[in-house]
Amino acid sequence: MNAASQSSEIERIRAGDMRAVARAISKVEDVSPDSAELMKQVFPLTGRGLIVGITGAPGAGKSSLVDKLALHYRKQGERVGIVAVDPSSPFSGGAILGDRIRMQTLGLDKGVFIRSMATRGNLGGLARSTVDAVSILDAAGYSKIIIETVGVGQDEVEVVKAADVSVVVLVPGMGDDIQAIKAGIMEIGDVFVINKADRDGVLSTEKELEALLSLATREDAWHPPIVKTVATEGQGVEELAAAIESYRDFHLRTESGLGRRRAIARWRILELLRERLVSQTLASDRASEKLEYLAGEVASRRRDPYSAVEELIGVGQ
Amino acid sequence: MNAASQSSEIERIRAGDMRAVARAISKVEDVSPDSAELMKQVFPLTGRGLIVGITGAPGAGKSSLVDKLALHYRKQGERVGIVAVDPSSPFSGGAILGDRIRMQTLGLDKGVFIRSMATRGNLGGLARSTVDAVSILDAAGYSKIIIETVGVGQDEVEVVKAADVSVVVLVPGMGDDIQAIKAGIMEIGDVFVINKADRDGVLSTEKELEALLSLATREDAWHPPIVKTVATEGQGVEELAAAIESYRDFHLRTESGLGRRRAIARWRILELLRERLVSQTLASDRASEKLEYLAGEVASRRRDPYSAVEELIGVGQ
Repeated sequence: MNAASQSSEIERIRAGDMRAVARAISKVEDVSPDSAELMKQVFPLTGRGLIVGITGAPGAGKSSLVDKLALHYRKQGERVGIVAVDPSSPFSGGAILGDRIRMQTLGLDKGVFIRSMATRGNLGGLARSTVDAVSILDAAGYSKIIIETVGVGQDEVEVVKAADVSVVVLVPGMGDDIQAIKAGIMEIGDVFVINKADRDGVLSTEKELEALLSLATREDAWHPPIVKTVATEGQGVEELAAAIESYRDFHLRTESGLGRRRAIARWRILELLRERLVSQTLASDRASEKLEYLAGEVASRRRDPYSAVEELIGVGQ
Repeated sequence: MNAASQSSEIERIRAGDMRAVARAISKVEDVSPDSAELMKQVFPLTGRGLIVGITGAPGAGKSSLVDKLALHYRKQGERVGIVAVDPSSPFSGGAILGDRIRMQTLGLDKGVFIRSMATRGNLGGLARSTVDAVSILDAAGYSKIIIETVGVGQDEVEVVKAADVSVVVLVPGMGDDIQAIKAGIMEIGDVFVINKADRDGVLSTEKELEALLSLATREDAWHPPIVKTVATEGQGVEELAAAIESYRDFHLRTESGLGRRRAIARWRILELLRERLVSQTLASDRASEKLEYLAGEVASRRRDPYSAVEELIGVGQ
């Protein structure tokens, strides 16, 4: 693509052209040759939207909550971007199925942009393409951008930590593992939601959570609020939006904000570095043939993975 | 470490010395300088143990199930290794807490080796160190090695796919997201467990699962069995062990087994490659100082992450 058409591409993104935005996200997902140049142009336009990360265990009702939060923002006249990460579904149509269901409630509204990001093969890059997609939406003037992740895996935690405000969704009485889950997500929640708050056990879950939160010491001395919601009914969504805003306000006022942005930037550079180095090493036909050959050697135990990698790095250079 | 002491180290591992095994796992976790050499020696000793991957959503009761399965194997005189992956807990003591609880039931038994693997910083490598730990246990003569992962993230799915037999644990009535979870894990389950099968809704969950499984087409034409368990009571654990063995037998008899081992080997090489390339690039003081500097630049929006990475790769080479 020549410079002229790329400049018009970034202009269309800046103007909020939904088709240009969708194409740009596909480019960063596919790591197309001009995606790096595009992102370099996108980056200076970012930093205006509020990025909200929402995570929690499967079954917690995150999707309903995200949809209702989006509707709330729409009523206030905001343009909303939703980026749903579905790392658990590398082959099936999980992510796409989710999109279709969503389209029924939000999809006809031109002020909402919905995109699911799924893994493509095992070269990684899902976390990187997700934050790139968020940057594109930010550059396109979406004032509220919600990242929704299923599960509690490492990549998903990182993606949610990369948001301005991280929301952790729990439900009452999720079973014995709840202590373990909570321990894992304590650090990342700026706001906690107990969804399905019309169910039994909401008070004991709230007490448990309060006890855990009182033990934690945050660098920024923020006390994460607990919001009770019934997402399917829209209950508590306004309170959630208010809690999100209050953390954002706090965050902007404190020194710790810069530290967090630095940590996010560092992580983002490392993700991109990892991807770049691997694709450089495997760029030649000879290197990718070597990879397939070595995979066969390791599979049949004629060689160990460590020796294989040393050989591969030798070929790539 | 000199050649002589390393050879005695591998001898102690081969002899099943628990302290040598624990030290070796710490080395691969810490990426200590001699860990690559150690793994090269470990690898030829592997391929004897049965590796079982167990995954499922938080709250599904995986830990209890794993403990009971381990007890079952112990009664048959097998030595059992358990590797628990806890990627959601990078800072807190989640993984360690889990260990302590476990130690009460299994820990005094010298025929069981339990180890939790947790993330250390954001350089990645959790999946790689987990499969390395499994190889070490395999080399040490543990005949059944169980990998337990919390959550449904990308890395965890990969780790479970790297097992000989992958078990997916569900519970009755987990809520609206269950379709999405199932869609994501359909491809990886060789055996399905409906745990907490004394709860309401077990029949409808079973029917739903059967319907989903009947839609899936596996390359190897295997029909994943569904086993109902009440892990806390030990119910159904023998049937689970039998289902695991039946898949192993099937797997060894079919052509598809080699394809799977190749895919696992390929993934394992790529994981290691990624880690090696990043650590090579950041090895010098100058490069790691540059990373910190660039993180600050990106955080304050004076530079974009893509340009930062290009500069970093220039410095590293």
